[in-house]
Amino acid sequence: MSKNEKGKVVPLGGLGEVGKNMTLLEYEGQILIIDMGLNFPEDDSPGVDYIIPNISYLKGRKEDILGVVFTHGHYDHIGAVPYFMNKLGNPALYGSPLTMGIIEQRQDDFPSQPKLNKTAVEDGSIIKLGPFKVEFFHQNHNIPQNLGLFIETPVGNILHTSDFKFDKTPQNGPSTDFKKLKEFSERGVHLMLSDSTGAEIEGSSLSEKTISENMEEIFQNAKGRIITATFSSLINRVQDIIELSEKYGRKVVIEGYGMKTNVELARNLGLISFSKGTLVERKNADSLPDNKTTIICTGAQGEERAALMRITQGQHRFFELRERDTVVFSSSVIPGNERSVQNLRDDILRQGADVYHYKMMDIHAKGHAQSEEIEEMIKLMKPNYLIPIHGQYSMLVRHKKIADKTGVPEKTVIIENGEPVELTPQKVYKTDEQINTKPVMVDGSGVGDVGGVVLYDRKELAESGIFVVIVVLDKKTKKLKNSPDIISRGFVYLRESQDLLAETRKKTREIIKEASRSRKTANSKKIKKEMEQKIEDFLYSKTRRRPIVLPVVIEV
Amino acid sequence: MSKNEKGKVVPLGGLGEVGKNMTLLEYEGQILIIDMGLNFPEDDSPGVDYIIPNISYLKGRKEDILGVVFTHGHYDHIGAVPYFMNKLGNPALYGSPLTMGIIEQRQDDFPSQPKLNKTAVEDGSIIKLGPFKVEFFHQNHNIPQNLGLFIETPVGNILHTSDFKFDKTPQNGPSTDFKKLKEFSERGVHLMLSDSTGAEIEGSSLSEKTISENMEEIFQNAKGRIITATFSSLINRVQDIIELSEKYGRKVVIEGYGMKTNVELARNLGLISFSKGTLVERKNADSLPDNKTTIICTGAQGEERAALMRITQGQHRFFELRERDTVVFSSSVIPGNERSVQNLRDDILRQGADVYHYKMMDIHAKGHAQSEEIEEMIKLMKPNYLIPIHGQYSMLVRHKKIADKTGVPEKTVIIENGEPVELTPQKVYKTDEQINTKPVMVDGSGVGDVGGVVLYDRKELAESGIFVVIVVLDKKTKKLKNSPDIISRGFVYLRESQDLLAETRKKTREIIKEASRSRKTANSKKIKKEMEQKIEDFLYSKTRRRPIVLPVVIEV
Repeated sequence: MSKNEKGKVVPLGGLGEVGKNMTLLEYEGQILIIDMGLNFPEDDSPGVDYIIPNISYLKGRKEDILGVVFTHGHYDHIGAVPYFMNKLGNPALYGSPLTMGIIEQRQDDFPSQPKLNKTAVEDGSIIKLGPFKVEFFHQNHNIPQNLGLFIETPVGNILHTSDFKFDKTPQNGPSTDFKKLKEFSERGVHLMLSDSTGAEIEGSSLSEKTISENMEEIFQNAKGRIITATFSSLINRVQDIIELSEKYGRKVVIEGYGMKTNVELARNLGLISFSKGTLVERKNADSLPDNKTTIICTGAQGEERAALMRITQGQHRFFELRERDTVVFSSSVIPGNERSVQNLRDDILRQGADVYHYKMMDIHAKGHAQSEEIEEMIKLMKPNYLIPIHGQYSMLVRHKKIADKTGVPEKTVIIENGEPVELTPQKVYKTDEQINTKPVMVDGSGVGDVGGVVLYDRKELAESGIFVVIVVLDKKTKKLKNSPDIISRGFVYLRESQDLLAETRKKTREIIKEASRSRKTANSKKIKKEMEQKIEDFLYSKTRRRPIVLPVVIEV
Repeated sequence: MSKNEKGKVVPLGGLGEVGKNMTLLEYEGQILIIDMGLNFPEDDSPGVDYIIPNISYLKGRKEDILGVVFTHGHYDHIGAVPYFMNKLGNPALYGSPLTMGIIEQRQDDFPSQPKLNKTAVEDGSIIKLGPFKVEFFHQNHNIPQNLGLFIETPVGNILHTSDFKFDKTPQNGPSTDFKKLKEFSERGVHLMLSDSTGAEIEGSSLSEKTISENMEEIFQNAKGRIITATFSSLINRVQDIIELSEKYGRKVVIEGYGMKTNVELARNLGLISFSKGTLVERKNADSLPDNKTTIICTGAQGEERAALMRITQGQHRFFELRERDTVVFSSSVIPGNERSVQNLRDDILRQGADVYHYKMMDIHAKGHAQSEEIEEMIKLMKPNYLIPIHGQYSMLVRHKKIADKTGVPEKTVIIENGEPVELTPQKVYKTDEQINTKPVMVDGSGVGDVGGVVLYDRKELAESGIFVVIVVLDKKTKKLKNSPDIISRGFVYLRESQDLLAETRKKTREIIKEASRSRKTANSKKIKKEMEQKIEDFLYSKTRRRPIVLPVVIEV
């Protein structure tokens, strides 16, 4: 190994944001991809379904891709797969059985996908991909079969923590293997890429054992049905609720599409188990006594079409809320969903049911290492260099502060999407290179065909609606041949605004008259321009609103 | 006083929500109004500026209104004033000097308002309005001159807490007067209306003293400028920051329109004071050393046009962010603003400045009593009946649970907007009456002209935009006279979608051809209907999006 050899880490997503995680390791032109996640749009991208990483860096480099390793099955790590497989030449995919199962499940929704080239790996698996030797190891998180990566490269060992937390007393899964972590440390970690999502929260994350104990208290006290809403990927929590139900003589109904498919998948993989007869079909649930029934469902984020919302609003085919029900929100609230969750909780309480949520009681543990665990990981792994990954910029900064305090890494390098670092056996450093990582919007079947202008228009439309004015002009004289027609949406109640419409028609007639008088402006393009501007001003003066004005000029 | 006499409490706003507080007390047809607040719209009301209470209950009852008493100057208690004065016959208004000052300030933005009929009151003031004797008393909150109400009525005494918290060590204002509260209790409280906003938070609210101590720590350590963003109504906090600046030899710039006007108002009322020379005009601030400068500004909620955002984005006329600046967010985040605040913090950190916010350090105390203070208030006042006010339904429920645990009130009655209670000297009970409190939307200069249909359209428009197809038909043959015209906004990039447009034109031609062939459908109304439906389906099949399709059919 010569001293001139360089490796490269290229972050395409997940740095400076929470979501769409995707990182490349590159050595002598060969590329290993870690994760292919998606992100959910914020308020400023109305109508957009997902946001995926920009992979223009990989254009024309199909042949260089050695494969894709997935850390775990959350959508912010696997959700972009169906958008990339065709473009990247259907590369080999590596991940745990659950991760691969979730990826495979999702493919069903996408037509014309190639058959995936999958290899299942597990804790302890080692694969060799070109210059990279990847060793997978168990890490605790809030989905089973989450794997960290210890990667030997010609320029030093890289440890990728995946999303992680330390849990010495997890439910239904192995605890953190500190012995193995120490072994990696002894083999030497040149660069660590470590999860930052929880960096701004002081202390340590809760153990799943605490959650289970609190959940049990709810089971002890509930008089009627227990309805628990949680993320469908929280498979260990689901297993725990099933076990508690069995202990307290309750049958369980699994409700909501996502919940059902994930439970089915987890069951096939042996991650969920229960006695015969515990699970009950929803259509048979009504024959059970309320105090013998548990419903596990989706909708803890107040999603409009999810099971819990439909049950609460009396729109569910099989269940409606009852006064003695106990509803448990066993999940945190994703930023942006606070209000819908609050409204849902209010609606449940209005109907007389009881509500428990994680702010009242520790009935949800987050999946990410908090400040003390992040510090512990650094002290444990003793990396020469550290790059905080997976997090908003403020989280990366806090991660660096924690690291600086330990005095362990020679340097903690903060980078964001599109800012590669180079690795030599001696050093890890940021380069001047800037890679295009402009987010790609997915809207319906369109990928990347929605951008600034379209989103700007959508926001304008949402603000004050649209106002279409149609005039038919005589081709020669440019004089009006009929009364101007008006169509409008999202502006005012048209029926109750007849005066405004009549005034606008009058105003339009004046504009046309004026325009047709002057030879300079007497062409339909200029008339349109005049109409747009003057009608917009007119409407604003009358209503203090600015709908998008679309003039239509037809000459006959 | 006969036993048949009844009083009535009518909640028009603020119950089952946080915002637009407005309550009526009624006795023998005479009405006292408490507060006239507004609310801010949620995501489901795009383009709406404010939401105000529905006052249809007061229609035709101008003569019955005795006056309006205001508890304090927050917009959720005073913001609807300009919309109601003309409608309600310009009734007499009572409130503290600061409250009346804020109301008066706002009137400037509204043309054709009557001259307000104002009376200033203060801690200890007593006014007699018909059958009601109202005694105002100091209550701590996060705005000065906040007044609770002790109201003697023929059917018993009513205590209205206003928004409140207990603070034994406030900054720049009086502490809670427990002696006076006890006196009210001894005179007997038949019904208490008490603030619920903080009911779901365990423990007690922080004292402003703690906040001040933590702020001082920041002043001790800051190397460059200190930029503090907070609510402009947090006048005591502003005073505190000014005092700290004086102590540490810093000059102060007040920045942002709302902050400036509120500081000016508070200064005139003697609520803010400082040494001569402490305040510096922004245009002179550049001559000061960084470590001698404090900027107090608006924008702690990440508002787009507020001072802090403009400073951060390099769009401020006088200030830009510097690497050694310390930016302090001294306010909590209003639900719905989490993401914009996160993005703003990230942007500040990216530029190398330091950020402190309330989740890192106690640099903001909320203004509302938490569970223990709510309990203390109940035990102190010993009301016969309790109605939890000011809060989401879940907060009212929690307030009731706290009350039930104390065993003090004979009954705690949960009501929501539009659900009146009746009072007799013996009892307080919910009636069957249901009053129309459907929220009224304010959009531009329109009040109540935006509702379900318009908002639905705005949301649809935001989702996938609009698609207008214009065809000109021969009046007789119903055949196309030109190529169909297409205008679209917020749907796809038109320039990059020429194929789709060509196909849609072709599709439109087919629809018209088909329609003109059949006698049954050959009228423009039916042709429109056909176009709308078929083009919508066509676009969905091509894009998986559903823009609003507006067909325009012109016959010549």
